[in-house]
Amino acid sequence: MSTEPGAAAPDLSRLSLNTATTKAWTLEQAVEGAVAAGIPAVGLWRDSVAEAGLERAAQLVSSAGLRVSSLCRGGFLTAADDAGIAAAREDNKAAIVEAATLGTRELIMVVGGLPAATGPNAPAAPEGDRDLVAARQRVSERIAELVPFAAEHHVRLVLEPLHPIFAADRAVLSTLGQCLTLAEPFPAETVGVVVDTYHVWWDPDLEALIHHAARTGRLASYQVCDWSLPIQANPLLSRGFMGDGFVDFSAITSWVREAGYAGDVEVEIFNQEIWDAPGEQTLQTMIDRYRQLVAPHL
Amino acid sequence: MSTEPGAAAPDLSRLSLNTATTKAWTLEQAVEGAVAAGIPAVGLWRDSVAEAGLERAAQLVSSAGLRVSSLCRGGFLTAADDAGIAAAREDNKAAIVEAATLGTRELIMVVGGLPAATGPNAPAAPEGDRDLVAARQRVSERIAELVPFAAEHHVRLVLEPLHPIFAADRAVLSTLGQCLTLAEPFPAETVGVVVDTYHVWWDPDLEALIHHAARTGRLASYQVCDWSLPIQANPLLSRGFMGDGFVDFSAITSWVREAGYAGDVEVEIFNQEIWDAPGEQTLQTMIDRYRQLVAPHL
Repeated sequence: MSTEPGAAAPDLSRLSLNTATTKAWTLEQAVEGAVAAGIPAVGLWRDSVAEAGLERAAQLVSSAGLRVSSLCRGGFLTAADDAGIAAAREDNKAAIVEAATLGTRELIMVVGGLPAATGPNAPAAPEGDRDLVAARQRVSERIAELVPFAAEHHVRLVLEPLHPIFAADRAVLSTLGQCLTLAEPFPAETVGVVVDTYHVWWDPDLEALIHHAARTGRLASYQVCDWSLPIQANPLLSRGFMGDGFVDFSAITSWVREAGYAGDVEVEIFNQEIWDAPGEQTLQTMIDRYRQLVAPHL
Repeated sequence: MSTEPGAAAPDLSRLSLNTATTKAWTLEQAVEGAVAAGIPAVGLWRDSVAEAGLERAAQLVSSAGLRVSSLCRGGFLTAADDAGIAAAREDNKAAIVEAATLGTRELIMVVGGLPAATGPNAPAAPEGDRDLVAARQRVSERIAELVPFAAEHHVRLVLEPLHPIFAADRAVLSTLGQCLTLAEPFPAETVGVVVDTYHVWWDPDLEALIHHAARTGRLASYQVCDWSLPIQANPLLSRGFMGDGFVDFSAITSWVREAGYAGDVEVEIFNQEIWDAPGEQTLQTMIDRYRQLVAPHL
């Protein structure tokens, strides 16, 4: 424990374990681990929910008394062909139903990359469509189509700006500002945004954008992990514990607080070394770092 | 050659070889290579200029009849301690004098990263200052101090936004918009910006920002190379020949043309495989790709 004996440790009432952080655990183990560590909420991933079975997953989490802070993830909306568009629509409708069943309003959306970066030969031999402006337009169109279904199910499509390192192959939404612009035509309770420190820490407009997101009622989730160097061969796995990289958690967390965000703070880390460690140890480090670097600024 | 026999190949009158692209060549070899290939301009690096000797370098380039489209680079302005600030000031003054001596107005500025990412133990064990807002403020202050000296020497400080992948360790200026805001208080002939496709291709505001840069007379350089995947262990070396990655050169080059930019187009590629190839072959591929993917949109 990092807090001194006798000092009041910041409470964990807003901490959420995104279950990708303890990837080796089943959903059942993650739920047990969170409860044992005093963490009151979990962010879930569709693959581990599917593995447990949707109804059973909902039951597990609810009987453990945990909140579900978000479901990861819908998205992958950039296909330009009819079959791809139809498949994405069906998959996202399924994700919306899953979110509603699990008792969360917040469905995180990773919108997908360029067709040239997602074909059978990509990324080694890119062929095909590099039109980023058109890919972004298709994302707007797909979101517009999903909004009525999401609203019916009281689920919010939470647009996630991904770090520009992923603009080619994973998400053509690269900034919080871009997500807010896309969200604007739709009700705040149906299209929101997430601030994930790994993806947006570098943004020169971040403070103003966080305020804008919160003021308009669209700030749906605050996810924390660090930007570590050197970048891993798979940059997705470069995420680290808070304090192991270069993110200024005091500044960003203060902006989130000042903007009025009062929701959960999810720790979501993809990192092979952390995945190889025992889950209980991961939870303890995550709690220590949250208490040291995040909670004091909330 | 990629152009068909009989078809008029786009001319090379605006093409510039950034000598980092042919890293294995001395300055003399790069000058000879450019002349032999019909390339009328070069972008120079301070280290290869120093190796040749400043006066001799100026002489070499000028007697070959080449334009110098830019000098790379000044910058590294984020130090917070007096000694670091003074050292950066002296080094940048030297770079300004070098640019003037070489006959270019355009000194490219890579402004430096966070102190926490540039210490002796970084990036493996980050300690110290992660205050990105303050680091950016120091860059503004250092630029303000350099402006009079640059103006006296008729040299422009050309702010380079680097891809956010480099925000921690190389440049706290991450977007073209941020560079334009920083430049605004200063005359356009003394503080400009560069559009390097590798760094800015993902920016959702890119078209508007290129127009803004050109309209205000600050668009000092257009540099082209591709964003290739997978990211190399050293992301600096992930740059590829145009066409080998995911950048939409027709869109970005059209924006640059429509905005009224009429200057040189520098090809600047850092890539170990390309560096290991014979320089003449590199120049030929670069010319072919320029003719196919860039020149038709200029």
